[in-house]
Formats: sequence, structure tokens, C-alpha cells
Amino acid sequence: MTSPDRADDRPLTVVDEHAHTWSPAAARARFREGLAGPTAGIAAGHTQANLISVPADWAYDVLLFCQRNPKPCPVLDVTDAGSWTTVLAGGADLRTDLPRYRVWRNGELVDEPTDVRAYWREDLVSFLIGCSFTFEWALSAAGVPVRHVEQGRNVPMYVTDRRCRPGGRLHGPLVVSMRPVPPPRLAAAIRESSLLPAVHGGPVHCGDPSVLGIADLGRPDFGDPVVAEPDDIPVFWACGVTPQAAVTASRPPFALTHAPGQMFLTDARDEQYRVA
Amino acid sequence: MTSPDRADDRPLTVVDEHAHTWSPAAARARFREGLAGPTAGIAAGHTQANLISVPADWAYDVLLFCQRNPKPCPVLDVTDAGSWTTVLAGGADLRTDLPRYRVWRNGELVDEPTDVRAYWREDLVSFLIGCSFTFEWALSAAGVPVRHVEQGRNVPMYVTDRRCRPGGRLHGPLVVSMRPVPPPRLAAAIRESSLLPAVHGGPVHCGDPSVLGIADLGRPDFGDPVVAEPDDIPVFWACGVTPQAAVTASRPPFALTHAPGQMFLTDARDEQYRVA
Repeated sequence: MTSPDRADDRPLTVVDEHAHTWSPAAARARFREGLAGPTAGIAAGHTQANLISVPADWAYDVLLFCQRNPKPCPVLDVTDAGSWTTVLAGGADLRTDLPRYRVWRNGELVDEPTDVRAYWREDLVSFLIGCSFTFEWALSAAGVPVRHVEQGRNVPMYVTDRRCRPGGRLHGPLVVSMRPVPPPRLAAAIRESSLLPAVHGGPVHCGDPSVLGIADLGRPDFGDPVVAEPDDIPVFWACGVTPQAAVTASRPPFALTHAPGQMFLTDARDEQYRVA
Repeated sequence: MTSPDRADDRPLTVVDEHAHTWSPAAARARFREGLAGPTAGIAAGHTQANLISVPADWAYDVLLFCQRNPKPCPVLDVTDAGSWTTVLAGGADLRTDLPRYRVWRNGELVDEPTDVRAYWREDLVSFLIGCSFTFEWALSAAGVPVRHVEQGRNVPMYVTDRRCRPGGRLHGPLVVSMRPVPPPRLAAAIRESSLLPAVHGGPVHCGDPSVLGIADLGRPDFGDPVVAEPDDIPVFWACGVTPQAAVTASRPPFALTHAPGQMFLTDARDEQYRVA
């Protein structure tokens, strides 16, 4: 098992200024070799995905939870039990091709390796869930600055006081990502993201963070704080880390997930998920 | 159990010219009293839904099949086992409030009652799946004629030669509905339906029916043939009867569904499912 304490766990947008030109397969190959870090800004125009793998006897609960909470949990693919391949990425291995994973036992985080082959089980069903990094290309193209990418940081993510609708044994709070948006670009940010419902769609809230129970934007629960311009409006999108918050709250005996912000790069193009 | 041979199984748009003004609750109450017939054109602006109920040990297969085939099977709600209520319609009873049902044993159609209380089981999980009748209001508002409603008929539906992606033990062909669209209105029809992915979204095909393996538009597999104008282009949308075709192909021991075209009227407004 790879050590969870790699020294290179910095944003890849800083490590490699050409990361936006990587192909998804090239990105996966580098992650397979052990490279780790946030994936915002990598492989322009390709769909990124959150991962959660659970034992088969929890699969219905996860799928039901996702169906009942489609904003945070839009499911892009579900594997058959034991399979580490996906229709979304030819030749990919879900056990090795993400930058960094989280390993959970009874709701407790027990490891953060860059490879989970040592943890793999034959009964694991994997869910790939849309990620808002996907629509950042559309935001950029529409003139919306993506400040966390500009600043070489992971996107800030926050646990809110909104409860998801439970699904079977799974329950927990809504997690959101936040991007500061200049007021003249707010309409474009809402429009462009709304057209991509498979990667969280439009925002769940704009403005006062306290409406979501967020006390301090400078102290995200996951990822890095981002520096906003004075007039920027904080815009909050439902986030694919929500299943991890459900794992913490619901304590399934075992789960694997991606590390927040360190996503699976699929071969799918964002355009495939654009509704109009 | 109500007889499957009611005499009033004609289009309600013919039976009652004011059906578009009914509230969803009023429509459900009439269906509960035994009225039956296609629901296109009823309760303007409200979301209609397909129904499939299966024993709990088949629920994961159904939900997985739906996730893997989101165009024909966009899931709007899943009930807990044994429950006949849904968050989509206050006070509704899924056992009585649809115009007509189909009862399936081992993939064979065994009854078409207007009430399924006699067939209900404590282990049934019900799936409500988006219906294209929902976007017909948007089509009308955009100047697209809805010919089957104009003609007081059920929408024509066809089993295609396209295979759905299997989910667990469920497999089968894609079923589509067809609406003839005048060429000047084709763009509007595509745009308006695409903005409603939860009710099948944009069409899967426009034009030559043989591309989908459909031999004769005049002989639909479900519903009624519709009269087209000479220049009309046949436009095909994925259809929520697809799970019934999967029941036929996959032969689960038991299932309840709606009768094709005779949908569940929810309290949800179409606008709730519009992405932008």
C-alpha cells in the first residue's frame, strides 16, 4: 500500500501548468504511478467523477440515496460487484487511477492511500458521481473566473445544515462546493451549470453562507479556502463529497471513496452531459 | 378487483373537454372512482409518471436498470417497501389512483384492473418514472402541435431494436413514443423537451422509423396510431413503457405497472424539472 503521506500532495495545477492539456488516459496513468493532488483544471473538457464503493449489501441504499438526492449525487455509472472497470473510461482501473482515496470502516476514516488494491473486496459495488469540476470549463468559456484554479488551490467544500433525504440506511447532511463569482457573471454561472444537471447542475444557493449553516467561508470542511474579490458573491453548488458525509453519519461497515477534490478522470466529454 | 373490461376506456380528452383544467388531486380522485383512459392533456402543467412496482429483492435491479438507461427511465421517486404513498402527491394511493394498471407474473400480463389493492404485497417497492406527457405543455406553448391530443388518442408507442444496457437481472429493448412534428417546429420541439431531462429530455431520433427497427408507424405496439400531416417529421422520444418491455424480457416473478398511456398524476409542476 502506498504511504498516505506523499510529499507531492499539492495542487497539480501548480505542479504542472500543462495539466489542462493532458488526456484523461494520461492523467489516469500519472495518478496510477502515484501522483496525487486536486484535479480541478486537468484534462480540459472531460467529465470528472466522485467515487464511492460499498459492499454489495449496501449498494441499494447508496443508489436509493443518490436517486433521492440528485443534486449532490448524480450517478454517472454503477459497476457490477467486484468490477474495477467502468464504461466511462476504457482501460481504467478504479483501484489505482484516482490521485488519492479514502478508506472508511464503520464511518471512521482509516487511511488515505493513492492505491486501494490492498483494500479491494470482491463484493464492492462502485458508484461514479458527477463532479462540478466538469462545468468549470463551461464557466471559464462564459467568462466566469474560476478562482480556486487561478489560485492553484483545491475548491473549498462545506458541510451544511441541510439534511439529505435518507435512502435506506444512508442519511447525512448536504455538502457544497463554493466559488466566488463577480455579480456581472452570476447569470452566466447559473445558466452554464444548470445545463449540466449530471454534474450537479445549477447552484443550490447564492449569497449569505449562514443560510446553509456555514459559519466561516475561510474555514472549509474540505479543500482550501479561496481568496474572493470584494464584490464577489459566494455561489454554492451541491457536492459529490455528500456521500462521504453520509458514510460518516451512517457508518456502513466499509467504504472506499476518492479524497475530496481528487477525482476520477473519465473519457466522457462534458458536452455529452449538456442537456441543450 | 375491478373488471379489466370497462366500457369507458376511451381517451379522457374526448370524454371530458375540461380535463386539462383538472387539478392532479381531482384527476386522481376520478381514477380512484374507476374512470380509466389515457392521461395526455390532463391537469395542465403537472408532471405525469410511469409506475413499476416490484418485490424488494428486485428493487436494486430496477433502480440499476433505470440509472443505466436514464433517457427511458428517469426516476422521480422510489417508495419504501410496502408503502403506497409518494412525496410527489399528497394523499395519493398508488394502488388506486392510476386510471388502469397491468399485473405481471413471470413476465406475462395477467390482468389490467383499475385498482390493484387485491394484488398488493407488503414487499413491493414502487418506482415513479418521468413521462413525456409532461413536456407536451411546453411543446404546445412553443407552438408545436400535439397531434394525438388534438385527435383524442393515446400517444403511439413502439418497441425498438435498440437494447437497453442491462441492470442486474433486468434487460430488454428501448420503447419510444412518437409525435409527428412540422419541420418549422422541430427545433422548438427538441429544445423544449431537452430542457426537461427528468421526463425523458430530448428525442432519441427524428425521421426514418426503420433506423429504430420500426416497420410501420401505423401499427404501434402500445397506444393508438396518430394521423400526421404530409410534411410532418416523426420524432421519437424514449418512453417509460421501457420497464414493461424489460419485465416481458426478464420475467421477474411479479410486477405491477401502469397501463401504457394511463399515467400517475403527480402534484409536481413541470417547471420543477426544467433545468434552465
